[in-house]
Amino acid sequence: MQYGYFDDAHREYVITRPDTPYPWINYLGSEDFFSLVSCTSGGYSFYKDARLLRLTRYRYNNVPTDAGGHYFYINDEGTVWNPGWQPTQTALDSYECRVGTGYTVIEGKKNGLKAKQTIMVPRGKTAEVTRLELTNESGETKKVSLYSFVEFCLWNAQDDSTNFQRNFALAEFEFEKDGAVQYHKTEYRERRNHYAVYAVNAPVDGFDTDRESFLGLYNGFGRPDAVLEDKPRNSVAHGWAPIGSHCIKRELKPGESVSFIFVLGYCENPDDQKFVAHEVINKEPAHKLLDDFQTDAQFEAALAELKAHWDKLLGKFSIQSGNEKFDRQVNMWNQYQCMVTFNMSRSASYFESGIGRGMGFRDCSQDLLGFVHLIPERARQRILDIASTQFPDGSAYHQYQPLTKRGNMDVGSGFNDDPLWLIFGVNAYIKETGDFGILDEMVDFDNDPSQAQTLLEHLRRSFRYIANHKGPHGLPLIGRADWNDCLNLNCFSEHPGESFQTTGPSEGPVAESVFIAGMYVGVADDYADLLERCGDHSEAAFVRGEKRAMTEAVEKNGWDGDWFLRAYDA
Amino acid sequence: MQYGYFDDAHREYVITRPDTPYPWINYLGSEDFFSLVSCTSGGYSFYKDARLLRLTRYRYNNVPTDAGGHYFYINDEGTVWNPGWQPTQTALDSYECRVGTGYTVIEGKKNGLKAKQTIMVPRGKTAEVTRLELTNESGETKKVSLYSFVEFCLWNAQDDSTNFQRNFALAEFEFEKDGAVQYHKTEYRERRNHYAVYAVNAPVDGFDTDRESFLGLYNGFGRPDAVLEDKPRNSVAHGWAPIGSHCIKRELKPGESVSFIFVLGYCENPDDQKFVAHEVINKEPAHKLLDDFQTDAQFEAALAELKAHWDKLLGKFSIQSGNEKFDRQVNMWNQYQCMVTFNMSRSASYFESGIGRGMGFRDCSQDLLGFVHLIPERARQRILDIASTQFPDGSAYHQYQPLTKRGNMDVGSGFNDDPLWLIFGVNAYIKETGDFGILDEMVDFDNDPSQAQTLLEHLRRSFRYIANHKGPHGLPLIGRADWNDCLNLNCFSEHPGESFQTTGPSEGPVAESVFIAGMYVGVADDYADLLERCGDHSEAAFVRGEKRAMTEAVEKNGWDGDWFLRAYDA
Repeated sequence: MQYGYFDDAHREYVITRPDTPYPWINYLGSEDFFSLVSCTSGGYSFYKDARLLRLTRYRYNNVPTDAGGHYFYINDEGTVWNPGWQPTQTALDSYECRVGTGYTVIEGKKNGLKAKQTIMVPRGKTAEVTRLELTNESGETKKVSLYSFVEFCLWNAQDDSTNFQRNFALAEFEFEKDGAVQYHKTEYRERRNHYAVYAVNAPVDGFDTDRESFLGLYNGFGRPDAVLEDKPRNSVAHGWAPIGSHCIKRELKPGESVSFIFVLGYCENPDDQKFVAHEVINKEPAHKLLDDFQTDAQFEAALAELKAHWDKLLGKFSIQSGNEKFDRQVNMWNQYQCMVTFNMSRSASYFESGIGRGMGFRDCSQDLLGFVHLIPERARQRILDIASTQFPDGSAYHQYQPLTKRGNMDVGSGFNDDPLWLIFGVNAYIKETGDFGILDEMVDFDNDPSQAQTLLEHLRRSFRYIANHKGPHGLPLIGRADWNDCLNLNCFSEHPGESFQTTGPSEGPVAESVFIAGMYVGVADDYADLLERCGDHSEAAFVRGEKRAMTEAVEKNGWDGDWFLRAYDA
Repeated sequence: MQYGYFDDAHREYVITRPDTPYPWINYLGSEDFFSLVSCTSGGYSFYKDARLLRLTRYRYNNVPTDAGGHYFYINDEGTVWNPGWQPTQTALDSYECRVGTGYTVIEGKKNGLKAKQTIMVPRGKTAEVTRLELTNESGETKKVSLYSFVEFCLWNAQDDSTNFQRNFALAEFEFEKDGAVQYHKTEYRERRNHYAVYAVNAPVDGFDTDRESFLGLYNGFGRPDAVLEDKPRNSVAHGWAPIGSHCIKRELKPGESVSFIFVLGYCENPDDQKFVAHEVINKEPAHKLLDDFQTDAQFEAALAELKAHWDKLLGKFSIQSGNEKFDRQVNMWNQYQCMVTFNMSRSASYFESGIGRGMGFRDCSQDLLGFVHLIPERARQRILDIASTQFPDGSAYHQYQPLTKRGNMDVGSGFNDDPLWLIFGVNAYIKETGDFGILDEMVDFDNDPSQAQTLLEHLRRSFRYIANHKGPHGLPLIGRADWNDCLNLNCFSEHPGESFQTTGPSEGPVAESVFIAGMYVGVADDYADLLERCGDHSEAAFVRGEKRAMTEAVEKNGWDGDWFLRAYDA
């Protein structure tokens, strides 16, 4: 089955039918604001942290799949449809989704009306910005109603999906321009200094912010009462389920186009400037954001800037092998994927709900190899962030929360491959950049500035931690796990609810890891070189000695530890 | 708008249209197995604990509301509908839902076919048992296909709704009788000694256990592909989303009825009897359960027993005031509600997700007043269970987990009304039963048998805890909260994510509670009487002195603490 094709000239993948075997998503944003958007406009947005600062609600493992997103409904004289097929699933005359570098374009046509939805998270903005263009390609004048739709999350996505006793009582809004600008300010009065704004750059014919008013209690996303009846309710949510929706009614002559820019933004205020009057929020940051997206020219400039940014990033490394498919992967999609991995570090996807974990110590370190050449300065910061969470004895939290940059104990520590990954990542960083200066940076242990040491000292403690935690064959103790996730997921748990990672007999004086042994050997030479360059010849000699001893221990016991070395050297 | 009426003779409320202003639910089960079932057959089941042993999946705050439940789909020669309207929402020719005592009957008619769905959790069984009767009321022979549907939860409802990286890889099944009996055995192999069985007492024409195969990826619950095409897939789930579904095809002559009994059960095995062969589970407990529901006569006997149980309970206290509405509430619905409250103690409802909290120390104690006359022996056990979680200093965990009966610190302790609620509940229990013997029962502190003391000693420490924690006006310190939930929900939290209950300046040496003062005075006389009866005249005198002093403190400061006394005396 063919679902699309590569458009290499535009660095896009073009999906040509909406009912893909599973939702295909793009990750928008590469700084602080992120949106996951599927090829049918499903998904959600968050600021920095998918768990703690979720702007819009999303239901994982839903029925049907991928129900919920940032939607546009069109009521074209009684025919109700979406440019991306979902959620009405009204059959389209044509459909196309272009997955681009930090943007997605969804275009649908129905009954001679074309709707083109261009979604991006612009550089330097904390917002998802969408242009919706409607073109009447028929020979008749059309009366068209356009309805936007987002469903707000009450910021903390974990609480939002469990604590209904409280959450149904919270939602609060303010408005400007007859509802064209909607401020979702839940908890802002009590204990938040941030709100969401959802706005369109045009006069509206109505709005909705209460989900039940807009959809109807028993209607799915695919049959919103307000759209079916073509009558916005102008609902103001107080509690229950807050949404944002604009209604825009226009008459389009044959050949005529109209264009609207929708901004879904995250705004913060200093604590002492939260309000301009009693219960009236300070909207200055929102106004500033919206000012930049009032015209098509502004939108196009931002999109051009975003594309230029990616062209520059992807231009740093490219090959021409003569094999189109190989070139495409190496020059574009693999690097793009590595950048997404840097941005999200697996904390949010269509399978990782964003509330189950933070970012990984191991993950960040290993992913670094994929993006260090693209953004060396950000790779540098990531290394320092990770190292700051390390424990003074050289071991590590396995995860940390991106918002706070502090280690979390959700799955504990004692993953004995983690310390070596730090060495691995630093080796790779220095090989790429030649920035030996990073080794002199003072870096906290366990986020405690009073315990700060140089990054080189962090590496020393990392290596020494493994050196001091070996088992009966002289191989590294596995601790709670190594990076063979299958191993720590299938054993040592006898009781329901027991963590697979933080308990059990694996963390004892016996279980060793050939994986970690291979890694220990693998990092040793580069690391010893660094030590020598820094003048620490005695530690370098120790490291080289350890490499020899570990290699012997592996060979003596008949394990083929060589696979890692070969992979690493290649 | 009229949505139904009371049928007092049958102790039922009859809902006459399915699209009620919000889903109306019944709580089935009064021992260990529970089902929440809405008037359109939405809801879910659990064994003992809605968080830890959830049998079926349910999505709160869903769109549309109440999507997901234990459904029966009928394909009557191309017309697909449900007896309870949901989830197909096919318009019915008639609809009725009878909310009874521990059972619900949903009856729908369409095109001359009547479907009657009687759902109960029988006494003494760990199962939801449903009879589905089909009657051809038309003049023509009908070919009818019936499809059952439940969606399994992977036991831990919290994990099930957050950890998709793992959960999509888990589901496992076994079958008997060509799929008529389906065993959902996820995690049974590794670390559970329990499984779910979903069975029908008749030969089947097919089955499904994989959600996507049955529904289709992009179809909601209302448009299952297998039903629309009238073609079961015989799918065997390995991972992804496990469901249970039977397909039964029958030809019905005019006037003919058929009846099927579906059992959704929970079964446990001793650890050393989990398997009968390699990876073949021990089905004996399931066979035993299913044997009891093979015939209509068995079903009817179990339903009659359930009704008789409730008739007996509700017969213990009744009035005839001359006011029909008053009598109805007092004799039936208020007592029924109190029993539900005893069973669930607010841990699961359509607003309480069952994963956010356990059962409350305060809640259980205060609810006791509503049901102690119905089930004194279970009220007794509940008192002892609660008291066992009390701290040795007389303070209390605010919640405990029903499965383990151990206190949990999810919202902490320091709710200074809690200790007095124990006295309050015991007073009420003894007034109703005259069972002074309960005071001599040895009861753990903090679930530690080595610290067990008599229940009377628990009461002493409760009262003394308040006596020793007073503020500047001589009133009880509020600690973290009293039972004015509004007070602890709206203040003292400045940062997102901060608990409203476990932190903040309220827990200091100053903040006092007039509520707790009133309660202190309110329990004093009855408690002092108990102490005297037990021979502890000195503590009784202390309590009476405390009452006087507290009353004076309240009056001196001009607060009207009297409201509580009046309410309590009345």
